[in-house]
Amino acid sequence: MQNFKIRKAKINDSNSIISLIMELAKYEREEDAVNLSEDDIKNDGFGPNPKFECLVAELNEEIVGLALFYPRYSTWEGQTLHLEDLIVTKNQRNKGIGKALYLSFIREAINYGVNRVEWAVLEWNIPAIKFYEESGAKIFPDWRTFQMTRQQMKNLINDN
Amino acid sequence: MQNFKIRKAKINDSNSIISLIMELAKYEREEDAVNLSEDDIKNDGFGPNPKFECLVAELNEEIVGLALFYPRYSTWEGQTLHLEDLIVTKNQRNKGIGKALYLSFIREAINYGVNRVEWAVLEWNIPAIKFYEESGAKIFPDWRTFQMTRQQMKNLINDN
Repeated sequence: MQNFKIRKAKINDSNSIISLIMELAKYEREEDAVNLSEDDIKNDGFGPNPKFECLVAELNEEIVGLALFYPRYSTWEGQTLHLEDLIVTKNQRNKGIGKALYLSFIREAINYGVNRVEWAVLEWNIPAIKFYEESGAKIFPDWRTFQMTRQQMKNLINDN
Repeated sequence: MQNFKIRKAKINDSNSIISLIMELAKYEREEDAVNLSEDDIKNDGFGPNPKFECLVAELNEEIVGLALFYPRYSTWEGQTLHLEDLIVTKNQRNKGIGKALYLSFIREAINYGVNRVEWAVLEWNIPAIKFYEESGAKIFPDWRTFQMTRQQMKNLINDN
């Protein structure tokens, strides 16, 4: 088995990054929901004011996984880091790549000095829930996510 | 009834902001969980690199509510805004202050140009869920939140 390595993403990884994001969306049954392009990833991740950071897993000079995260703010704990996506491409799973990316993210968070990291999981993704619980993370079963699209925002303002 | 006004928070509002955060934590049965001080709010909200933005509701020269938010990043939608806290002090509820703060936040989000806003609600907070659903927002019933504390992070790294 070839060795993989974990490193910080570079702007030239943007195409691989968007491909992995697409692959995850498909797994989550939302493949039409990705409205970002490779150029968005370039601008948003590697421009003058990066909106996220990304670690990638490289195997045989190919990007086979990523951990994408950004800072958030808790009014209880101060600065936190949010793990937006942890992805390993389907044919490279069960080789420890996901765990290595996760551990690298946790090390980044410790170095950042944050008191908390957080992320979201689909409740039917039992393997992921089991993985995170075994790692010592805690699920918050009574929190629910709300979202509003730009169109819904405009409708609300027009009606008020 | 006196009129209230909504405005952007200033550094001198930090004491009122932390008081409202404490009040919400108590309502959420987590009053010991707030590890931030007034100085943290001053530094994190009003220093050279603000980690959040805040709108406040002022009534009779007192701060009676707030909407605290910050940018996040969606790998489907790009930049978003996250509403971390929407608080109205208990004895000033049912006067439309919460709705006015919420609408001001939505207007900020439209001006920001984001395609999505999001926030979390406790599943037993039925009045809040009803309020948000009536406003056109959508709940995502199958997402669950995971968190890891700094101590849990250190334990994980030590074990690996």
